Amino acid sequence: MKTLRQIGERGLIQRLQRLLPRGQGVVVGIGDDCAALRFGAGGKHGDLLLLKTDAVVEGVHFARRATPRQIGWKAMARALSDIAAMAGRPRWALVTAGLREGLPVRFVEDIYRGMAAVAREFGVAIVGGETVRTRGPLWLSIALAGEAGRRAMRLRSGARVGDAIFVTGSLGGSIAGKHLAFTPRIREAQWLARRGFVRAMIDISDGLVRDLGHVCRESRVGARLMVSAIPIAPAAGGSLARALGDGEDFELLFTTPARDAERLMRAWQRAFPRLSLTQIGIITRAKGIRLRDDTGQSRPLHENGYDHFTPSHA
Amino acid sequence: MKTLRQIGERGLIQRLQRLLPRGQGVVVGIGDDCAALRFGAGGKHGDLLLLKTDAVVEGVHFARRATPRQIGWKAMARALSDIAAMAGRPRWALVTAGLREGLPVRFVEDIYRGMAAVAREFGVAIVGGETVRTRGPLWLSIALAGEAGRRAMRLRSGARVGDAIFVTGSLGGSIAGKHLAFTPRIREAQWLARRGFVRAMIDISDGLVRDLGHVCRESRVGARLMVSAIPIAPAAGGSLARALGDGEDFELLFTTPARDAERLMRAWQRAFPRLSLTQIGIITRAKGIRLRDDTGQSRPLHENGYDHFTPSHA
Repeated sequence: MKTLRQIGERGLIQRLQRLLPRGQGVVVGIGDDCAALRFGAGGKHGDLLLLKTDAVVEGVHFARRATPRQIGWKAMARALSDIAAMAGRPRWALVTAGLREGLPVRFVEDIYRGMAAVAREFGVAIVGGETVRTRGPLWLSIALAGEAGRRAMRLRSGARVGDAIFVTGSLGGSIAGKHLAFTPRIREAQWLARRGFVRAMIDISDGLVRDLGHVCRESRVGARLMVSAIPIAPAAGGSLARALGDGEDFELLFTTPARDAERLMRAWQRAFPRLSLTQIGIITRAKGIRLRDDTGQSRPLHENGYDHFTPSHA
Repeated sequence: MKTLRQIGERGLIQRLQRLLPRGQGVVVGIGDDCAALRFGAGGKHGDLLLLKTDAVVEGVHFARRATPRQIGWKAMARALSDIAAMAGRPRWALVTAGLREGLPVRFVEDIYRGMAAVAREFGVAIVGGETVRTRGPLWLSIALAGEAGRRAMRLRSGARVGDAIFVTGSLGGSIAGKHLAFTPRIREAQWLARRGFVRAMIDISDGLVRDLGHVCRESRVGARLMVSAIPIAPAAGGSLARALGDGEDFELLFTTPARDAERLMRAWQRAFPRLSLTQIGIITRAKGIRLRDDTGQSRPLHENGYDHFTPSHA
């Protein structure tokens, strides 16, 4: 009898998908950052309803030494980052918290203060949820609803051969602190989509190579990264491997038609002078992800990202 | 420093509500069975978007001996019951599962089969979610989106003095098995609202007296129950106290203008011949809930329902 440890999270999800009922109005179902749904006549300009749930668990997504405000911030910001990845506008959140009875009330209030702070920053109302008792690790599950214009919405499947691959910010070493205090790239994603600069987009939660792998698989393309272009975060200590493999950077990874790349860079620097944007590679017809070094040699990259059940990232 | 155990779930929620950001488009926020939201131009006939999250935890909402299909069924059916309480139509669900790595894959698949079975019965598509690793008790959190006509939607706050109080089915002893296999009253609730029979409605999850207390508080009224009218479930072993106090019956509790009560009973028996409907009391101007016995004596009832943090129901 196989266990979850043996088949990993992706293996489990593949098995579960076959069991799940489908229904009407589903524009995007399982397999992208959010579900996208046709709700009645739609939002303003025929917007789609975006739905996302995201959970954090003590000991997995945060350590015991994290402050309660950090825990709350991270839980909400992760879900916001998924709305950003679709170039959506977040609207309403519901919060479910699994709590031990012995927790100080003040600690729990501070968790909600952390969630409220980032929710408020992006105009999100917290409209429901519940607290449930647990004897195990503390956990929070955020359900987030948003909206996205049918034409502005961006999926993982939109990349085309020849597209330039961009990433915001710098990558790696998030575990040193950024993962508890990052800013979801909501504004940047909406700006990018509104100006037509994006073909495919995802937020980097599993790690650059792994998330680029999601884009390539959904778009049926490959990618070639340039080793000298990868923006390594100071927290990654100069390690290219960490920039490629570490999870939870929550930066935007997207592709742009090659002809627009220069214009994008100029417009970006005016719009977001304090956040870097870097072209790290191009989309290729050949499948798989390759890394090219300064000598022109290239080698295949394995998706050494984070899997929630298998310890391969250790 | 106070703990959750000391202030209880309701005390916690009262404190948290003050901290949470508000936003636009919120027709019903925290404090009813679902949030109700204005999404764009609305659904068909200007429907509102309903959102609800509901979680179950091993050792709290189900015992280790529950089958995986029962666990999945219950998790999804509870959320459906909240949509029913608003007279809404459920549409899409996202499922978050906190799982131990050592669980057999087959066990997890059967949980999802249980969820899928009840979702399919009510036309709900499962469009997303995730699995996360935990070392503690298994948990499932369901996020459910639905729709409700602005005029058909029913809140806890609609009860008026003189209304007749009705309950579907029979009450008490759900823990003996019903809580793992109940049918959410989606069809019945929609029928009731469509025909204009309902002023206020709630589903019985915390226990009859406690949930009636929610309706009375939100409607700023009181209630008088007739002891001989309370429909005691066989599983409650003839115990009136259990019918009044046990949680998780997931029957509908609603109020109807007194002049419509007879017409409702006749129409109900034709529409739902296999599900009983019972008038159990009336809404009063005097606050609080009183129980009247056959001699005409009445006594106040305390809300001996279930609180997720305080052991007062033991």
